[in-house]
Amino acid sequence: MTGSLYDRPDFFAAYARLPRSEKGLEAAPEWPALQALLPEMTGKRVLDLGCGYGWFARWARAQGAESVLALDVSARMLERAAELTEGEGIEYREGDLEALDLPIAAFDLVYSSLAFHYVVELPDMLRRVHAAMAPGGVLVFSQEHPLLTAPSHPGWLTPEPGRRVWALDDYLEEGPRVTDWLAPGVVKQHRSLGTLVNALVGAGLTLKHLEEWSPTPAQIQAEPDWAEDRDRPSFLLVKAAG
Amino acid sequence: MTGSLYDRPDFFAAYARLPRSEKGLEAAPEWPALQALLPEMTGKRVLDLGCGYGWFARWARAQGAESVLALDVSARMLERAAELTEGEGIEYREGDLEALDLPIAAFDLVYSSLAFHYVVELPDMLRRVHAAMAPGGVLVFSQEHPLLTAPSHPGWLTPEPGRRVWALDDYLEEGPRVTDWLAPGVVKQHRSLGTLVNALVGAGLTLKHLEEWSPTPAQIQAEPDWAEDRDRPSFLLVKAAG
Repeated sequence: MTGSLYDRPDFFAAYARLPRSEKGLEAAPEWPALQALLPEMTGKRVLDLGCGYGWFARWARAQGAESVLALDVSARMLERAAELTEGEGIEYREGDLEALDLPIAAFDLVYSSLAFHYVVELPDMLRRVHAAMAPGGVLVFSQEHPLLTAPSHPGWLTPEPGRRVWALDDYLEEGPRVTDWLAPGVVKQHRSLGTLVNALVGAGLTLKHLEEWSPTPAQIQAEPDWAEDRDRPSFLLVKAAG
Repeated sequence: MTGSLYDRPDFFAAYARLPRSEKGLEAAPEWPALQALLPEMTGKRVLDLGCGYGWFARWARAQGAESVLALDVSARMLERAAELTEGEGIEYREGDLEALDLPIAAFDLVYSSLAFHYVVELPDMLRRVHAAMAPGGVLVFSQEHPLLTAPSHPGWLTPEPGRRVWALDDYLEEGPRVTDWLAPGVVKQHRSLGTLVNALVGAGLTLKHLEEWSPTPAQIQAEPDWAEDRDRPSFLLVKAAG
């Protein structure tokens, strides 16, 4: 799993310098779209899978969530999250998404940001998540888009001046992908969109929304590089009901 | 719509020479996977949207379906379908998927093969389809995969010997795509997977299965060119409940 990854000094140092680590949710371009999928937070019992520095956990509490159980596999990450947090209502706990041990029917919202693409045994994890959801509960998560993880050689080509294309291959070849994101040798799990959807359905969840994230025109004006995502989306945002 | 297209002599002549036109379902590589999504047919009231030569309608009756209403926008197509059909239980009728006029709660199975990527007003069509489904009814359909329709210049590149990549761009740029498939100037509608899924959910349907079709190892051995679909799937197969 990724515990060893996030606890590696080279990775942790690079992660700490990401805008979304330093500045929180507002620095994540997909946050407004993900936020739009969330229920009204007042009184909600929240589970955050892969909480990192705890930005979402604190936001959820500020919005009126009753409690947040925030899990991460990285002890260093949890230590930093606790340092940043004041007040009650958030429990940070070490936990591996590959072996979740959760109370039954205990959460109104299960949230996860950019963690599921590290999970090897996703169908099993989703069954545990579903069992942990209270009646009426929802799962809202983001992950890397399969078009980002698929290629044998991820990158853009310029077949002729002015035309940029994503070099897609191996889309249906599922399994680990080793990349040099932030640090060398980072392993992500590539799954097709169909496999992801069928894992959600197979876990007993009902798909409510599937969004291949696009930057808004205003975001593209502010950050022209993000226009790449119109050609090949980077993020997948999902809402499912229990 | 596509009525004019399928009634164009050049397109119709080329369509008539396709293996799946001449030989029927068994000549369609994705048919076994699509068939696996179908319910037991005995006694079912079936609606076939874009029936072409009527191969599926006849198969459904042979499997015990009670009745089949088979719609197509092309009068020439329906004429040929009627010629090929013996016996009772199938009604061929001219009908445009953009303006479906269907009885309410009348069908146990709505089926469509490779037609939805021509439909401009898909959300409206899906609402009409849902209203036409009886309690317990299902929708099973195939369409071209968005990865096939997306690119501004659909095709493969060879960035270095032995590596074939699909030149992906414009994935989130939805709308018409003009291609020269069978005849020049064929217009298909490109929609992202997310948009398709959200249109199904928005019409009140529940997604049960989403398959990005892959050739089997046996199919690749028999037809090595089909291995391309492992890099970039061509077909999307979907099952949804009413």
